[in-house]
Amino acid sequence: MMARVNPDRLLSDLMQLRTFGAQGTGVVRTSYSDADMAAREWLCQRMTDAGLEARVDGVGNVLGRSSQPGPALLIGSHSDTQPRGGWLDGALGVIYGLEIARALSEDVSTRHLAVDPVSWIDEESTYLGCLGSRSFCGVLTEALERDSVNEQGETVREAIARVGLEGVERTRLERSRYIGYLEAHIEQGSCLEETGKVIGVVTSIVGIVNRHVRFRGQSNHAGTTPMSRRRDAGAALFDFAVRVRQRFQVLAGPTTVWTIGEASISPGSKSIIPGAAEMMLQFRDPDSSRLTLMGDAVSALAEEMNAEGPVEISEQTAHVAVAPTTMDADLQEQIARAAQQHVPDAWMQMPSAAGHDPMVISEHLPCAMLFVPSIGGISHDFAEDSLHEDIVTGCRVLADAAASILLSARESA
Amino acid sequence: MMARVNPDRLLSDLMQLRTFGAQGTGVVRTSYSDADMAAREWLCQRMTDAGLEARVDGVGNVLGRSSQPGPALLIGSHSDTQPRGGWLDGALGVIYGLEIARALSEDVSTRHLAVDPVSWIDEESTYLGCLGSRSFCGVLTEALERDSVNEQGETVREAIARVGLEGVERTRLERSRYIGYLEAHIEQGSCLEETGKVIGVVTSIVGIVNRHVRFRGQSNHAGTTPMSRRRDAGAALFDFAVRVRQRFQVLAGPTTVWTIGEASISPGSKSIIPGAAEMMLQFRDPDSSRLTLMGDAVSALAEEMNAEGPVEISEQTAHVAVAPTTMDADLQEQIARAAQQHVPDAWMQMPSAAGHDPMVISEHLPCAMLFVPSIGGISHDFAEDSLHEDIVTGCRVLADAAASILLSARESA
Repeated sequence: MMARVNPDRLLSDLMQLRTFGAQGTGVVRTSYSDADMAAREWLCQRMTDAGLEARVDGVGNVLGRSSQPGPALLIGSHSDTQPRGGWLDGALGVIYGLEIARALSEDVSTRHLAVDPVSWIDEESTYLGCLGSRSFCGVLTEALERDSVNEQGETVREAIARVGLEGVERTRLERSRYIGYLEAHIEQGSCLEETGKVIGVVTSIVGIVNRHVRFRGQSNHAGTTPMSRRRDAGAALFDFAVRVRQRFQVLAGPTTVWTIGEASISPGSKSIIPGAAEMMLQFRDPDSSRLTLMGDAVSALAEEMNAEGPVEISEQTAHVAVAPTTMDADLQEQIARAAQQHVPDAWMQMPSAAGHDPMVISEHLPCAMLFVPSIGGISHDFAEDSLHEDIVTGCRVLADAAASILLSARESA
Repeated sequence: MMARVNPDRLLSDLMQLRTFGAQGTGVVRTSYSDADMAAREWLCQRMTDAGLEARVDGVGNVLGRSSQPGPALLIGSHSDTQPRGGWLDGALGVIYGLEIARALSEDVSTRHLAVDPVSWIDEESTYLGCLGSRSFCGVLTEALERDSVNEQGETVREAIARVGLEGVERTRLERSRYIGYLEAHIEQGSCLEETGKVIGVVTSIVGIVNRHVRFRGQSNHAGTTPMSRRRDAGAALFDFAVRVRQRFQVLAGPTTVWTIGEASISPGSKSIIPGAAEMMLQFRDPDSSRLTLMGDAVSALAEEMNAEGPVEISEQTAHVAVAPTTMDADLQEQIARAAQQHVPDAWMQMPSAAGHDPMVISEHLPCAMLFVPSIGGISHDFAEDSLHEDIVTGCRVLADAAASILLSARESA
């Protein structure tokens, strides 16, 4: 069985979605921006045109409900972007959901199947990562809405009021309707490209830990303070960064990554010894026990350096640590089978090193993900791109997987 | 011979100068601010009251010319402060100059001697370090006036116009009048305090080199980019900082200091590998050959790391490197002799680890400096302070030294 995905319609919709917030080859469409909301209205209309009962809900999610009764599959991703994002990150999976709903409804053998396409809001964390899927799953607290802000200090609640969604009903997960959530995404790395594969079947999403490390020393004159009397918070930060790397290298598994993406020293003048410094240390791994060992290593290093002096180091987990998420085995199996039909032996199982909405949703609904190759592994950048051929193949694989998942659910029901 | 310094008048003038820009225990009196200009007018009046021919010149320097013919001594410092400065940094030496001119003019044995007190502008580099002494020595170019700006982007030229000094004559060094320049200053360090000494006779001012080091890597996703494929500019900066410290530790002499006071990594997001980074590395030493060795070590490290990859490192001397400045041996000797009279064996020779106007003036006129202890070594801070007793002793020593310098000059003339 092959679902009849329409490649021209798929690519045309992706190109149209790209126009909202387009800047050169890139897209600037952060959550709750004018471009983001206009794209959501457009998407809602495209879903309606496809015969779905569609709406933008009270948090900004767009969901198109099929008129077919369940068991149903939810298929989608997010249509918000990074501050300087690419055209496919999120958008690909959203248009896949729409196209799969259309393709299945157009074939006599699958038109009784229920596919509800969805676009979550703020997966990219302009305010709060996975905001939309949190709302859908009922885990978006009032405190989170009140305390999560964008760079300008606007809260989620204020953003929702600004775009006119205050008081609008929020769609919640109907556990009785859905048997699973499928999301396609660009890989955002280069494993597929390097191994010559076209489809990635995601086994798990890595866990992510962010540790905020603070250094407290004493600002002083950079000329008149002898080296022996300094309490240089900047020097301690540099030291910490190098020593934590040495320890992580010993603990690392094959896919472990770590990054110091933020670091600053104060007051930041060439003739003043830094009295304070801070850094954000992030590490990711699919194995939660390894994440624990790495976290322990950070704490141990801070303790050792505190004992050595002369700078005071404190560290704590920043944001919420995200535990590794395992994708549903049965759903993975169905995607793998469809991949093997379309691109025999040109698919692979792989963990996702980036975070995605299934981190939230998998607590409430079985999830699976499919990756298509990113050219040069580039993502979160205007240069992000994928081959049109791969985009079409990915949609065909996911459509066939969706059809067989829904058909077997009906059989076993 | 003891010059009759008036302790009450000395301290009272220091207290009055402190009121201009006072904030709590500190002083905010940056160059060309309203507080700075008001202080200069007040100072000019105090000099006039002392029988000197005083004026604020076209760059903002205040010079009180004695009616006595030369050979004359120029004695002073600067009355501008750091953005959050202390009450004595600069002010001490300025009021010493005024008090010494008064004390010598009041005694029959010294009233024929010529002391011209002075307050330079912008030693603290709000616009351009040692601006006032540069102007006085004829080395302030039009390009420097046009290109040197404060944090708000105002040029020196604009500041001069704003305070109404445009077109006002600028006082220049009369080489035939002066036999030397003396400056007293708080130590800004804790050598005197730690060794129980009251007076420091400065042997030299350290040379200062600032090296701006830039790191160019590649920004990328902190999850999907494996460690082996990263070009992390931040990690290279941390590495560079630790390795340069190891090399400097080998090269360092007893008073060598080095500081990384500025460092930043870009774009500065916890989930993005830094693609660019930069730091300012400053090192100081009284020995210019050691500064050369240290600079060579920086270049060698950059070359090695460039060969290792994967981040591109470039480095260059930032601002103008300041060569070590040697104080005049005869003037030092006279100050040392006066110190030995006032505080036998409670004085010491020492280099100045901070920069001062004699770095500029000594190219044109013999210079010497005297230090008094800083409590706790604290400076460039609201908490900066010195014992009143030490303040008075310092002035007495410098007054006696000035008198004997001028008397011997007359004898040998």
